Amino acid sequence: MEMEKYLMTPAERPWSAPAATVYAASSSTSASSGKTYRLGRIFGRDGRTLILPADHGTMLGRVSGLEDPIELVRTFLPLACDGFLLGPGVIQRTAPWFAARDAPARLLAIDSYWRGEDIGTSVLSISMARAAQLGVDGVKILMPWDVSPTERAARSQFVGLVITAAEEHGLPVMVEPIVLSSPRGEDVVAIEGDGCRMAAELGADIIKVAYPGDPELFSKWCDELGVPVVILGGPAGGNTQDLAELVTEAMDAGAKGITIGRRLWQRPIEEATKLLGELLSIVHRTEENR
Amino acid sequence: MEMEKYLMTPAERPWSAPAATVYAASSSTSASSGKTYRLGRIFGRDGRTLILPADHGTMLGRVSGLEDPIELVRTFLPLACDGFLLGPGVIQRTAPWFAARDAPARLLAIDSYWRGEDIGTSVLSISMARAAQLGVDGVKILMPWDVSPTERAARSQFVGLVITAAEEHGLPVMVEPIVLSSPRGEDVVAIEGDGCRMAAELGADIIKVAYPGDPELFSKWCDELGVPVVILGGPAGGNTQDLAELVTEAMDAGAKGITIGRRLWQRPIEEATKLLGELLSIVHRTEENR
Amino acid sequence: MEMEKYLMTPAERPWSAPAATVYAASSSTSASSGKTYRLGRIFGRDGRTLILPADHGTMLGRVSGLEDPIELVRTFLPLACDGFLLGPGVIQRTAPWFAARDAPARLLAIDSYWRGEDIGTSVLSISMARAAQLGVDGVKILMPWDVSPTERAARSQFVGLVITAAEEHGLPVMVEPIVLSSPRGEDVVAIEGDGCRMAAELGADIIKVAYPGDPELFSKWCDELGVPVVILGGPAGGNTQDLAELVTEAMDAGAKGITIGRRLWQRPIEEATKLLGELLSIVHRTEENR
Amino acid sequence: MEMEKYLMTPAERPWSAPAATVYAASSSTSASSGKTYRLGRIFGRDGRTLILPADHGTMLGRVSGLEDPIELVRTFLPLACDGFLLGPGVIQRTAPWFAARDAPARLLAIDSYWRGEDIGTSVLSISMARAAQLGVDGVKILMPWDVSPTERAARSQFVGLVITAAEEHGLPVMVEPIVLSSPRGEDVVAIEGDGCRMAAELGADIIKVAYPGDPELFSKWCDELGVPVVILGGPAGGNTQDLAELVTEAMDAGAKGITIGRRLWQRPIEEATKLLGELLSIVHRTEENR
Amino acid sequence: MEMEKYLMTPAERPWSAPAATVYAASSSTSASSGKTYRLGRIFGRDGRTLILPADHGTMLGRVSGLEDPIELVRTFLPLACDGFLLGPGVIQRTAPWFAARDAPARLLAIDSYWRGEDIGTSVLSISMARAAQLGVDGVKILMPWDVSPTERAARSQFVGLVITAAEEHGLPVMVEPIVLSSPRGEDVVAIEGDGCRMAAELGADIIKVAYPGDPELFSKWCDELGVPVVILGGPAGGNTQDLAELVTEAMDAGAKGITIGRRLWQRPIEEATKLLGELLSIVHRTEENR
Repeated sequence: MEMEKYLMTPAERPWSAPAATVYAASSSTSASSGKTYRLGRIFGRDGRTLILPADHGTMLGRVSGLEDPIELVRTFLPLACDGFLLGPGVIQRTAPWFAARDAPARLLAIDSYWRGEDIGTSVLSISMARAAQLGVDGVKILMPWDVSPTERAARSQFVGLVITAAEEHGLPVMVEPIVLSSPRGEDVVAIEGDGCRMAAELGADIIKVAYPGDPELFSKWCDELGVPVVILGGPAGGNTQDLAELVTEAMDAGAKGITIGRRLWQRPIEEATKLLGELLSIVHRTEENR
Repeated sequence: MEMEKYLMTPAERPWSAPAATVYAASSSTSASSGKTYRLGRIFGRDGRTLILPADHGTMLGRVSGLEDPIELVRTFLPLACDGFLLGPGVIQRTAPWFAARDAPARLLAIDSYWRGEDIGTSVLSISMARAAQLGVDGVKILMPWDVSPTERAARSQFVGLVITAAEEHGLPVMVEPIVLSSPRGEDVVAIEGDGCRMAAELGADIIKVAYPGDPELFSKWCDELGVPVVILGGPAGGNTQDLAELVTEAMDAGAKGITIGRRLWQRPIEEATKLLGELLSIVHRTEENR
Repeated sequence: MEMEKYLMTPAERPWSAPAATVYAASSSTSASSGKTYRLGRIFGRDGRTLILPADHGTMLGRVSGLEDPIELVRTFLPLACDGFLLGPGVIQRTAPWFAARDAPARLLAIDSYWRGEDIGTSVLSISMARAAQLGVDGVKILMPWDVSPTERAARSQFVGLVITAAEEHGLPVMVEPIVLSSPRGEDVVAIEGDGCRMAAELGADIIKVAYPGDPELFSKWCDELGVPVVILGGPAGGNTQDLAELVTEAMDAGAKGITIGRRLWQRPIEEATKLLGELLSIVHRTEENR
Repeated sequence: MEMEKYLMTPAERPWSAPAATVYAASSSTSASSGKTYRLGRIFGRDGRTLILPADHGTMLGRVSGLEDPIELVRTFLPLACDGFLLGPGVIQRTAPWFAARDAPARLLAIDSYWRGEDIGTSVLSISMARAAQLGVDGVKILMPWDVSPTERAARSQFVGLVITAAEEHGLPVMVEPIVLSSPRGEDVVAIEGDGCRMAAELGADIIKVAYPGDPELFSKWCDELGVPVVILGGPAGGNTQDLAELVTEAMDAGAKGITIGRRLWQRPIEEATKLLGELLSIVHRTEENR
Repeated sequence: MEMEKYLMTPAERPWSAPAATVYAASSSTSASSGKTYRLGRIFGRDGRTLILPADHGTMLGRVSGLEDPIELVRTFLPLACDGFLLGPGVIQRTAPWFAARDAPARLLAIDSYWRGEDIGTSVLSISMARAAQLGVDGVKILMPWDVSPTERAARSQFVGLVITAAEEHGLPVMVEPIVLSSPRGEDVVAIEGDGCRMAAELGADIIKVAYPGDPELFSKWCDELGVPVVILGGPAGGNTQDLAELVTEAMDAGAKGITIGRRLWQRPIEEATKLLGELLSIVHRTEENR
């Protein structure tokens, strides 16, 4: 068998190859077209985003610093962040503030996760149809991965069902693979890396994950996963300098954005405002400025 | 990055800001318009309400003092309370008494909750479609929150499903986060506060909760939750003076109403009548009269 | 055969007989209970009602005197009328004004009728589900009866379908049999009388018809039809004295109310206000005062 | 009867009255909240909008000056218009251009109307579900009103069905009552005025109509209809000065925006660009600048 | 108003612009991804295709030269054409012949059109779900456009419904706007040009149309429509030289392929084979070879 004739130069990765100009216009559907539109609202013209998460109440209750999520939106809305991640009640009630063309994007935390003794349970807080009615630009779900094999089955099914339902409405899905155990253990990076891969295999549109600390490894993740990766902030801690360095390192390694909440809004407002401006300039700085 | 141009005076909270006069008339739906109508029937022109609950039989059976709920409605209907909270059978059978324009509002206790050894179960006693047929002004569900994480998932899902179904009929939903264990324990206030927050995140329209005893904390809850909060009475106990003081304190701290049953109708009728009048005057007293 | 044992004193008509105490509480459904409630809101405690119709725009466009139906509602709402008959857009947008327990009832003009050369067509302007969401107390449809046999079939079917759909939501249906031809001809009374009967046979809950001019005949109609009959006003004309006499005669003959619009709101507001007060006192006067 | 007690100062129109602060946050639904958001994207912070229509191909085929609607979008997108009105194919294919937070709003021309000899027919070009997937901010339908009564029934039904379907997705509906006959005849203003009223009664969220030429009459329409009115441009004709004056007069009389296509894009691009700038400044000029 | 800041260099047409590499991988859905795959099977790596249609029996019955469509498939399958256009029965029965990776693509003629005296009727011959089960690469429908306005409404609706159904299965739709009257008349080009535009506005993925004879006009169509255009052959006639020149002209002007049946398979097989080879070389010749 002559193998030579099969040896071709591998094509570029599909989405970075020059678009097939003939039928590209035909290969969309209403739903994929809507997804393109909504992802563009989340990631903007430079493909980068700073999302401010304030959805913690959907699982943690009356979190310190986020006792009043509507007030938090009110405080941070005039700043230049690219989007908010919020629970359904807050999105429903703050709609008038986002009712303008220059408003930030909105991602809906559509699920609630509860860890029982044996197994955790994920539920939808609101139906996908209602999420679409609200006009959000995407939905976000948690994917705890430091769990038993039985629960991994349940989590995989949940992620798959949410992605399926979201496709029917043209809504992108952000999946957050996470180790919830405390302390997080030595194998946390490996577990979260596996979770990212599982999320990508299931069809997640955006992956949110803790920065693994290792720029080389993280860079590989960003390349391999094939969808934009944004990093989370985690519990408050460290100083603003640490955070700025972490974000710089992550963005340089390939992150497409950040969703940092507690480490931002658990600070005094003046400090938070200054920090937000600094993070925005890191996230959106151009190649030339690096 | 020029942060200055983004630093604006934060807007007022959406629902207290002057309505956008241009398109406000267009931003309603049949369902939201119906919700506006029904909430107005519950809270009246001054935005305050005294609801008399007599739905206890849907979970507790033949409660002392409420052996005959139809008779209780008959007794209290001529008094000036703003609404009743009743089970489906009682609402169905007492309809002729409420068939007039000046009748009190009716909230339907649409669920029944049963605590098993491991996990509790909430069920709908009647479908949302039947609730809508009955012409009630809203539905009410219990949200026990001193439960395992697994049950919290189930409760969150139940609350979300009821709110979704109610939206399709334009019916407001009152959610009652509650600690059912006895004794209620030291952390009862924190648990109920988290439950209130969860209910608000899920989109509850009205929150019913025990007064936490601390006016400062309760005032924060009322501000943060963004929807009207009404307090419950709990088991009979204390004298009328205590109750009047509790209601005064709660209303002053931001409550929009009360739903007090056993502590009212487990008294002799003359005493209950007098107490009801007193509570009504507390609930509806104007700013000037305070 | 012994016929004697069948010769009994005829019972009273069912709805005027003392309630069958055994199963009355059980013979209701959620829907029938809701209908009882809503009819009570329309007819009030004395079983009489003055409905102000301002729905003409749903067929006649920008009617003189009703160019601005929302303004008309605003003007007449503070007066003491028992209800309004309005189109869907107006009901949706004026909901905040009716959001209180002492507000007038609202009937929704749910259809639109257009007379073609050969046959007329009735269409629903809004679905019954949306009518129920809005929280209206009933729906109203037109039943033109000076039509061909083919159209009578279509009209009967439409009335039947609307009544069927309304039952599923517990909504009473007001049917208006009418001769639309102009001039109305000599047989107008016979045709409208037949139309009333047809509406009653089909299950209409309320019949709205022009006063036939003959109190004896009208009295028979009211007795025979077995459901409340309200009279309409028709085009403006005559003086207020004529109208008051017509209403007095109709109410004395058995009418349960009036729905008079153009003859009321096409007058100057002061005159209309005074006339409304006069009509209200006629409609609601007690037996003793007659 | 004591009328005095009912004589109150009429309330302000619901949407200009101060929002009822107590329960306003509760009276929304997911759908109404989404409508608020989408209307805000269309009308912006000043409640005014300049929509560029390029949907003519969905009925007129290969229109002169609009042979290539995608190219037209490409040309005009960099200018500062507030929105585009486009057919489904064009919206699906141009999604990447609108995929950013500062992009213009998009309204979808969801229907196609064809006038037969006896009766015209309206059809949906794309389902409402697909419109929602695409992420458009609203849908627009034509409502020809110079038609037979039989067709008026069909048009009313079509408008009602589209509004019902759109509500389920939180999408606002722009209805365009229009006289399509040529010449348009003497009664064109009266017919279009009746059509506007009918659209408002049926629940249209935005009304698009030809400027009737009479500022006093148009001002009344804008007040009466209770929803924002935008004017259309009609066939090309007249010079830019005429158009600027027409727009000025219409905006001063109460219009909330303009949707002018052929009179804009059938000009040379430099002229069109200059005219667009002029129209934008007229539409958005503030009270002080008038 | 400063227009300068809005004056940007217009972007490239979305599908020829460099893909936004960040989120392109995320903006697909299962259905759009399937459409990409299927379109690639139809158009191949050079974006051009020669489809052999043999579906005529679905409307014309026992066509001369196509009495036995299965035999025709058997005859032409070994030749190097890119695809077949076949009716459902033939596709179902010839599946084994196409059961290999190097087999031609298959488009399913999913409809049947019948012209009555007043109005024509399009019906689906097979459901879209069955088309998907068959594993075809696309479906094709006829869109007669030399029809009354009433029928244009019906055709538009049919095209819209088929496109909607096909999207749900990830199937591309080829629409064929056509003048069926004979003789075809002077305005045939204008009518078919309008039909192409209507098909594109409705979201057709591929347009099949008769070559209008004018390369300049046809080139504009190909640019404007934004989706691949393939030309049809029409009834047999002319010699092979004429046909080759027509195809050359069309491909040079922008066509992406041809679907020529009768003019091919109504010839003797040797002649047809030779002609097919010639047409394939015209369709697939590279830029350099032109």
